[in-house]
Amino acid sequence: MENNQEIPYKIYLEEQEMPKQWYNVRADMKNKPAPLLNPGTGKPITVEELSGVFCTELAKQELDDSTAYFDIPDDILQFYKMYRPAPLVRAYHLERALETPAKIYYKFEGNNTSGSHKLNSAIAQAFYAKHQGLKGVTTETGAGQWGTALSMACAFLDLDCQVYMVKVSYEQKPFRREVMRTYGAKVTPSPSNTTEVGKKILSEFPDTNGSLGCAISEAVEAATSQEGYRYVLGSVLSQVLLHQSIIGLEAKAALDKYDVKPDIIIGCAGGGSNLGGLISPFMGEKLRGEADYRFIAVEPASCPSLTRGKYVYDFCDTGAICPLAKMYTLGSSFMPSANHAGGLRYHGMSSVLSQLYDDGLMEAVSVEQTAVFDAA
Amino acid sequence: MENNQEIPYKIYLEEQEMPKQWYNVRADMKNKPAPLLNPGTGKPITVEELSGVFCTELAKQELDDSTAYFDIPDDILQFYKMYRPAPLVRAYHLERALETPAKIYYKFEGNNTSGSHKLNSAIAQAFYAKHQGLKGVTTETGAGQWGTALSMACAFLDLDCQVYMVKVSYEQKPFRREVMRTYGAKVTPSPSNTTEVGKKILSEFPDTNGSLGCAISEAVEAATSQEGYRYVLGSVLSQVLLHQSIIGLEAKAALDKYDVKPDIIIGCAGGGSNLGGLISPFMGEKLRGEADYRFIAVEPASCPSLTRGKYVYDFCDTGAICPLAKMYTLGSSFMPSANHAGGLRYHGMSSVLSQLYDDGLMEAVSVEQTAVFDAA
Repeated sequence: MENNQEIPYKIYLEEQEMPKQWYNVRADMKNKPAPLLNPGTGKPITVEELSGVFCTELAKQELDDSTAYFDIPDDILQFYKMYRPAPLVRAYHLERALETPAKIYYKFEGNNTSGSHKLNSAIAQAFYAKHQGLKGVTTETGAGQWGTALSMACAFLDLDCQVYMVKVSYEQKPFRREVMRTYGAKVTPSPSNTTEVGKKILSEFPDTNGSLGCAISEAVEAATSQEGYRYVLGSVLSQVLLHQSIIGLEAKAALDKYDVKPDIIIGCAGGGSNLGGLISPFMGEKLRGEADYRFIAVEPASCPSLTRGKYVYDFCDTGAICPLAKMYTLGSSFMPSANHAGGLRYHGMSSVLSQLYDDGLMEAVSVEQTAVFDAA
Repeated sequence: MENNQEIPYKIYLEEQEMPKQWYNVRADMKNKPAPLLNPGTGKPITVEELSGVFCTELAKQELDDSTAYFDIPDDILQFYKMYRPAPLVRAYHLERALETPAKIYYKFEGNNTSGSHKLNSAIAQAFYAKHQGLKGVTTETGAGQWGTALSMACAFLDLDCQVYMVKVSYEQKPFRREVMRTYGAKVTPSPSNTTEVGKKILSEFPDTNGSLGCAISEAVEAATSQEGYRYVLGSVLSQVLLHQSIIGLEAKAALDKYDVKPDIIIGCAGGGSNLGGLISPFMGEKLRGEADYRFIAVEPASCPSLTRGKYVYDFCDTGAICPLAKMYTLGSSFMPSANHAGGLRYHGMSSVLSQLYDDGLMEAVSVEQTAVFDAA
């Protein structure tokens, strides 16, 4: 869409313009995401049941599909201000290089010490764990973005942090591994002999490079077998999309400031945290009939959960100890090719995004890594 | 100093507030830095002589100690706008953690794709090379910040880029090395057998890990032995301090916006590009008698050129093929310990900063790396 003002290269909101609430897109969805199921009973899981795995406040956020806005606690707002608002960048030079009439904007979330958008949810999850009086949290990480962000958040709040890192990434990315340790986290290559589920996976697949699904199983077992610990997850979950909505809320505020209405909103999609966060407020407008946008999820051809997966109930983890989620999935036993095992190689897709995609409200394409590099 | 306004966590200038000129602190110095000497004649080097090594425009900037302001070419301004103005950050959380009454600000220059302030001078030097119709440039890099920045700038301008990387860093930092190659640069571990000076150093010190001084010698030889090439350097030189003055100009504009007068300005110092850029406009005020500040250079105890070096004429490179500069130096044959060989391990200090230090206008301290890590 056109506008008459000159758009700067980077639109920065003022700190006082930073959103003070997260937006829960589920509240505006007619077809709600299917409920998480208790793997023992096969029935929708309750806050009480889920609170054994997650902090209570996060379990509530996970299951709440009717509250549209959640206040961001002040401690989290003060933390956010170290690196937020993040800029919305107009890619003038790229437009020129492509000789395109399109006006290209991107939201830049790399401007924090952990290096990615993952910190938006890491500090929230660590905060609720601290607030509940817990000793620490466990998690998995692939390429290490989530693990790094969580380690940083836990160091800030003086919480113990135990990270199961997919083995191939643990070996390929020594610097990421050591950054987490520098923040005080305990980092274990997964699958490992430190958990029952890890031992079981290793006995069946002794040469495995690991996967996020395996590492999740180990992290969940570690959390539930230690007093004062809970499990946290960096993507896929609805609570994570809630926290990441700050990306979209800021992007929308920045565009509104210059009267820009986007036609198409595109994001890469692994588990869905980045894309879901970005599109949430725009999707909310579309769901309420206030505006229309095209949304496009871009996923890796080597792990095409939306474009090649099935929309069914599946385990979130390889060890099948997590709740069942209805999502586009390649199967919880999916093992990615060994070249990469990061977040973009997770077998399933956020149940929120899965439902939006199934309802035709969002499109999806998959691309080959090598084609992406060639284009760049 | 006090002020009554609430200071945000991050002060961002608007893009139209970005400085349009670089500031040359030499213009306000009563005692000018000693002139570069031609190693053949022992006399002050001329623009003509220097133009065999550097682009002509950069040779002019290097030798000009009387022009206070240089216009920043519009192409460079447009490039800067991809990542500038950079924020001046108020470290509220650090102040709280330290329980200090001090108000701590830092200028954050990591917010660009190359990851450091080096890009400010890299794009300038690459621009003048392109403008002169050259085919490419050669340079050295230690830890890889300068090499990465220059590779990115050259890729943007379609210039060939040849980087001699200190051997120990080449081996310790494979990702940095490959980032440069991804931008299209040719990266050679130094000392190498590709130059006469490299062969000579290798024959004398076959087991050497390399140093910036060696890599500079090789890069200069490579530039002067190829048609259409010039040599560029990421620190030490007065032209680099000129380009990096944008850091200080922005920092000062941001502080002025909130009526904040700093008492002490501190920066780490290797060759001096970061510190010199930061302090230039403040030092200018001090030199003109308009304000007073304390300036403190912080250098590594393992390479203490200001605090332990001598203020004498020395070669800028190990191979003794560069002009002679009067600077605080540990000697051009200095070999840093093998743990690191980055910019903070260069044997000499910017002649501008050396003169300011010698005149008592700036202080210097040296610190142990391990003590820094412990404090963090």
